[in-house]
Amino acid sequence: MKRKSQSVLRAVSGPAAASRPSLSSLSVGHGKRVRMWRMLYAHGARNGTLAVLPLDQGLEHGPTDFFPNPEALDTDFQFRLAVEGDYSAIALGIGLAEKYMKEFCGRVPLILKLNGKTNIADDAEAVSPLSASVEDAVRLGADAVGFTLYVGSPREEVGVRDFQTVRRDCERLGMPIVMWAYPRGRAIEAKGGKGTLYAQDYAARVAEELGADVVKLHEPDEDNERCPEPYRSLREPAPARLRRVVRSAGRVMVLFSGGVKQDNDAAVLRKVGLYMEAGATGVMFGRNMWLRSFSQALALTRQVHRILSRHPR
Amino acid sequence: MKRKSQSVLRAVSGPAAASRPSLSSLSVGHGKRVRMWRMLYAHGARNGTLAVLPLDQGLEHGPTDFFPNPEALDTDFQFRLAVEGDYSAIALGIGLAEKYMKEFCGRVPLILKLNGKTNIADDAEAVSPLSASVEDAVRLGADAVGFTLYVGSPREEVGVRDFQTVRRDCERLGMPIVMWAYPRGRAIEAKGGKGTLYAQDYAARVAEELGADVVKLHEPDEDNERCPEPYRSLREPAPARLRRVVRSAGRVMVLFSGGVKQDNDAAVLRKVGLYMEAGATGVMFGRNMWLRSFSQALALTRQVHRILSRHPR
Amino acid sequence: MKRKSQSVLRAVSGPAAASRPSLSSLSVGHGKRVRMWRMLYAHGARNGTLAVLPLDQGLEHGPTDFFPNPEALDTDFQFRLAVEGDYSAIALGIGLAEKYMKEFCGRVPLILKLNGKTNIADDAEAVSPLSASVEDAVRLGADAVGFTLYVGSPREEVGVRDFQTVRRDCERLGMPIVMWAYPRGRAIEAKGGKGTLYAQDYAARVAEELGADVVKLHEPDEDNERCPEPYRSLREPAPARLRRVVRSAGRVMVLFSGGVKQDNDAAVLRKVGLYMEAGATGVMFGRNMWLRSFSQALALTRQVHRILSRHPR
Amino acid sequence: MKRKSQSVLRAVSGPAAASRPSLSSLSVGHGKRVRMWRMLYAHGARNGTLAVLPLDQGLEHGPTDFFPNPEALDTDFQFRLAVEGDYSAIALGIGLAEKYMKEFCGRVPLILKLNGKTNIADDAEAVSPLSASVEDAVRLGADAVGFTLYVGSPREEVGVRDFQTVRRDCERLGMPIVMWAYPRGRAIEAKGGKGTLYAQDYAARVAEELGADVVKLHEPDEDNERCPEPYRSLREPAPARLRRVVRSAGRVMVLFSGGVKQDNDAAVLRKVGLYMEAGATGVMFGRNMWLRSFSQALALTRQVHRILSRHPR
Amino acid sequence: MKRKSQSVLRAVSGPAAASRPSLSSLSVGHGKRVRMWRMLYAHGARNGTLAVLPLDQGLEHGPTDFFPNPEALDTDFQFRLAVEGDYSAIALGIGLAEKYMKEFCGRVPLILKLNGKTNIADDAEAVSPLSASVEDAVRLGADAVGFTLYVGSPREEVGVRDFQTVRRDCERLGMPIVMWAYPRGRAIEAKGGKGTLYAQDYAARVAEELGADVVKLHEPDEDNERCPEPYRSLREPAPARLRRVVRSAGRVMVLFSGGVKQDNDAAVLRKVGLYMEAGATGVMFGRNMWLRSFSQALALTRQVHRILSRHPR
Repeated sequence: MKRKSQSVLRAVSGPAAASRPSLSSLSVGHGKRVRMWRMLYAHGARNGTLAVLPLDQGLEHGPTDFFPNPEALDTDFQFRLAVEGDYSAIALGIGLAEKYMKEFCGRVPLILKLNGKTNIADDAEAVSPLSASVEDAVRLGADAVGFTLYVGSPREEVGVRDFQTVRRDCERLGMPIVMWAYPRGRAIEAKGGKGTLYAQDYAARVAEELGADVVKLHEPDEDNERCPEPYRSLREPAPARLRRVVRSAGRVMVLFSGGVKQDNDAAVLRKVGLYMEAGATGVMFGRNMWLRSFSQALALTRQVHRILSRHPR
Repeated sequence: MKRKSQSVLRAVSGPAAASRPSLSSLSVGHGKRVRMWRMLYAHGARNGTLAVLPLDQGLEHGPTDFFPNPEALDTDFQFRLAVEGDYSAIALGIGLAEKYMKEFCGRVPLILKLNGKTNIADDAEAVSPLSASVEDAVRLGADAVGFTLYVGSPREEVGVRDFQTVRRDCERLGMPIVMWAYPRGRAIEAKGGKGTLYAQDYAARVAEELGADVVKLHEPDEDNERCPEPYRSLREPAPARLRRVVRSAGRVMVLFSGGVKQDNDAAVLRKVGLYMEAGATGVMFGRNMWLRSFSQALALTRQVHRILSRHPR
Repeated sequence: MKRKSQSVLRAVSGPAAASRPSLSSLSVGHGKRVRMWRMLYAHGARNGTLAVLPLDQGLEHGPTDFFPNPEALDTDFQFRLAVEGDYSAIALGIGLAEKYMKEFCGRVPLILKLNGKTNIADDAEAVSPLSASVEDAVRLGADAVGFTLYVGSPREEVGVRDFQTVRRDCERLGMPIVMWAYPRGRAIEAKGGKGTLYAQDYAARVAEELGADVVKLHEPDEDNERCPEPYRSLREPAPARLRRVVRSAGRVMVLFSGGVKQDNDAAVLRKVGLYMEAGATGVMFGRNMWLRSFSQALALTRQVHRILSRHPR
Repeated sequence: MKRKSQSVLRAVSGPAAASRPSLSSLSVGHGKRVRMWRMLYAHGARNGTLAVLPLDQGLEHGPTDFFPNPEALDTDFQFRLAVEGDYSAIALGIGLAEKYMKEFCGRVPLILKLNGKTNIADDAEAVSPLSASVEDAVRLGADAVGFTLYVGSPREEVGVRDFQTVRRDCERLGMPIVMWAYPRGRAIEAKGGKGTLYAQDYAARVAEELGADVVKLHEPDEDNERCPEPYRSLREPAPARLRRVVRSAGRVMVLFSGGVKQDNDAAVLRKVGLYMEAGATGVMFGRNMWLRSFSQALALTRQVHRILSRHPR
Repeated sequence: MKRKSQSVLRAVSGPAAASRPSLSSLSVGHGKRVRMWRMLYAHGARNGTLAVLPLDQGLEHGPTDFFPNPEALDTDFQFRLAVEGDYSAIALGIGLAEKYMKEFCGRVPLILKLNGKTNIADDAEAVSPLSASVEDAVRLGADAVGFTLYVGSPREEVGVRDFQTVRRDCERLGMPIVMWAYPRGRAIEAKGGKGTLYAQDYAARVAEELGADVVKLHEPDEDNERCPEPYRSLREPAPARLRRVVRSAGRVMVLFSGGVKQDNDAAVLRKVGLYMEAGATGVMFGRNMWLRSFSQALALTRQVHRILSRHPR
């Protein structure tokens, strides 16, 4: 793990993994480094880790997700939580960013999610169309863009081409890319499902080979009979599975997501610890945060920061 | 509702929800605000509400829709109605705008509908191709563009990409976007149908997340057995359903449509009252207006304005 | 009919329908008006009507169409007929225009047909690809472009997008658009067929809503059991059907085509009379002209002009 | 025939069909004329005819085609044959042109074949993707470009659009276009097959209507029961079929191909005579040349020139 | 073989096959020659041969491939091996190049692999989307780009079009192209499979006709009953099959790959000898190298160089 976290840091903040990057060490024009720095060291635990608050569920799943906490339907809720909870970043799409960010800008970094889709049609050939551009992100003062790639979808091709456009613009404009690397589609279902170690491990590697800076993954489940070998025969416990995925992501920083809401705070925090011990750079928890009341969410956020602060990168 | 209408106003006319925006408060280059202002405060009830007269049925449904009132086949009819009835805007496509607007321009704001299709082929994989551009809208002096998104269609992807192009041009040229957010296609049919609360509620949220300024929705029907949970189990009366949809649209102004013609004026007006009490910004009634005789339509229009004037936003 | 022909004239030649437009009344840069004028007033009956000689059958149907009159295989035939018969315009594609127009240019207006296809593959999902551009039309000195839209085809979307490109260029370059509005594809077949009043009436309206200047339609047949209501129940005689279609085209000038060759001259001329009495702006007769011997075609052409001259627009 | 060959000549070399074009008669900027002249009058029989040596079979059919004469696998063979045999042009793709032309350039005109495909997948929906551009042709000093159009393929649309791009660039850069007009796909198979008079006759007309300068066709076979009328009922001998196809090509120069190798020299030459008597501008023989030994191929080439020299155009 | 290796050299280093190219003999602007020279003469055996170390398996096959040697998951491993083993080049995608190359740049030439895909969805209609550009390659200081073409796939068309874009940019920027010419898809499976002589021989020719500079192929297997004639009836031993493929590639340099790992060093080296005797320019061995321990891989690399040094090109 040592080696891993160091190499990540090297990739992002320069040759000396131990010395904290500072503004004076930044070259002119290194926009990507400036922006990563703000998320890694000016917010959250400020130690090279990341705690990101995502809000794209309204598009991806519909208003359904807000039923347990109707307050969260008003994006003010998430923005206030992100600012008061000092998140490394809030991640959302162009519509919400344009409409709600005004009063909060400068107070929390923005990851502008560039693509997305509804879940009305099925995912057999999933593709996530671009609904915003890297130039939108620059205009809005974002510190990164988010991009969903449906790894293994029969239309993976379309996603890869879109990603290539986004990556090129990010290169030109100094913008980091966070990839939501999501195995999806009828082919991955036939090979064990999107949640397996096989699927998540492959997704981690894809993020690295295609050029993401940060990757959002799900905690990998055990493999099953339909997974290809050698995964099918692996019988690794959860921590080993998490470490494997982090290793496969190489120099890409890994964020694990929380998935559906868990009521038990302690269980959520145990997850965070597990992820960080496996070498993750941080977490991206949405429903597990904003489906709690504001004060509960804030309290839980602070506990997350506390765990992250024990895992400097 | 208070909170809702204020936040909408804030989004459109600046920080002070109570103070009416004025020309002097507009920054140079804020074309979108200038144009929204004309529709919200220089026409119709002039109180931040919207009464829009749409005319895209000839393309979307064919001349069929005009059979009950053949006079309405000549777009002069709708333009005269829009001007004499002082509508907030008339919404139609490039062909009608180019050919009929000349004598009316300046007298009623134009929402140029940018895409559309016939209903000859079925809607299983509906997509609405662009037939005009934001630059056309600017050239014609329009105050907004209209865009139909078939939410949940298996080809939703194509619509989202088109919308992204339109939104980018609107950003560049200061043009508001009215989204016709229409659930459509075989997937939504399998999940209860396009008219359900589930469908309309999702569409409202999509409009906000993708970046519309105004959204046109249908009054939501009750959910049915095929709708996903938690909608399937909801048993909310019509007013609650309307409020739910308005809330899901967040800071996007909601217009409810009238659908097929109702002969009973009082029933139409009851609908308007219901919509405005639910927090809508206004209505978009086509066939319920221009399928009446000119004098009847004009009279009904004035009664609608009267209701809107009781619901300042 | 009065009203119709006047509104058409107004759309094309300015406010005073009675006063003939003249070169001096044309504004600088009004290329579309200049070009329309040449076809409406400098050729043919010179009274605002149009008699167009089309020649795209070689591409659309193959050499088959020329078997009854092999002379017509040499495009010289049609060019000579267009010039000596003083047609309002000849309509053909880029290949024929490039190769045969040289010796005739200036003597007959050209409508450059921009798209087309063979009829080898079936029409279930018909689409007509662009094979020339509006800039080609300008370079060749054309006075209009022709565009086939397969209304109601499952791939209607592609046609609409192509049309949008063409319309934009026409706007920029001052070029009128003649739309061949052809219902086509498996969906219209399921709804009664491409020749019905339902189909032709819808096509007329589509031409207007999408922004054509002139539309070519077929004389509508009676509706049948498979047509949607209210068409299915209409039992209108031919003249009423023609008037209905002309009304649905609004301010778009309507040309009716002749279809397959009729040997009886009188029958052809009766059709012309019928069309003009229904409010059409003119006719587009191909095979009914160039499948006759040159002298017969010329004689028939002159009789057509005589009828048109009785119907000034 | 007289009329035909004259009109072709008129199209290419100016008004006086009898007077040979000369460099002094060429206008500045008439690149297409300069290039056509080189192929028609500076090589081959030098009398307005064309003898083209094609080499795209390696891509279209695989190395299979070279088994009878492995020497021909090295493109030096075809280039030496083209130069020593003084062909009007050699036709091949970008890869072979880039790699083998160096030592021969200037000594034989080049037709750069712009598109092509393998025959591994079936031809039911054949399309031929572009693998080089008109600008490549200019850069390599080519005197024409070659383009395969799969006439009647369900994806004909894609080919037509590609052709439109190529034609536009050719217009801009003064480059003649040779169209390989190949009926192909499941629809033409259902209508009698790609080799019938129906198919070839249609292809000839398509080449003219879309704007080719030269068209490569196959000698048409008799029609069969599956061909549409009136072809099904035609019973024309081979010479009449050839004449018909040449007539349908109008002012496009026709090259007939040789198809699979025939061992009998006399039979090959009889074909050439037949083609020229039918009004063709020349021949494009590949396997019938380069599957012979070099000296045999050279001898046969000279005999072909001798026949062409008896048919000035 | 003599002729072959000379013609290759001629293509790359100029007319005199025997005289080694030098920097002084290079013309200004001949970027492709400069870059090829670095791989052919400044690294590896330095005699016009190539030993390339590829690393795209993580994307193409997933982390599965690294299970036998987990160390290889960290791309440092391959970079160190490439530098210490003095490979002609290392071939990998944009993500790995961006993240790991920094400390090694200048010490080993880079072939930037421009396209790739996962193997989760099946290969019936395989296509490999671009995920990086030729400009990325220039920016990273690469000496070539790599491109996978799925020869014979039903979507071959898409690959050819992408290749055309890449080739055009390579032309403009002086960048050599290495084509991974991979028969793939349901059509080649129906014709005997991707590994047969038929398939590999066709792929070799495609690489030449489309304009690759170097082609990566697999050692061809025997043909089988499903292969087309004349391949089906060929019964050639392995060396003859290799020679045949090299001949079909013409002036394109051939690299043979190693495929799945073989534990026996001697067997690997026998293969190398066989390939070079057949006229190949070199080898591209991935898993057969980096799935060994570092010291074993280094030792084996040196033995490979020794064999290459006996086969100057």
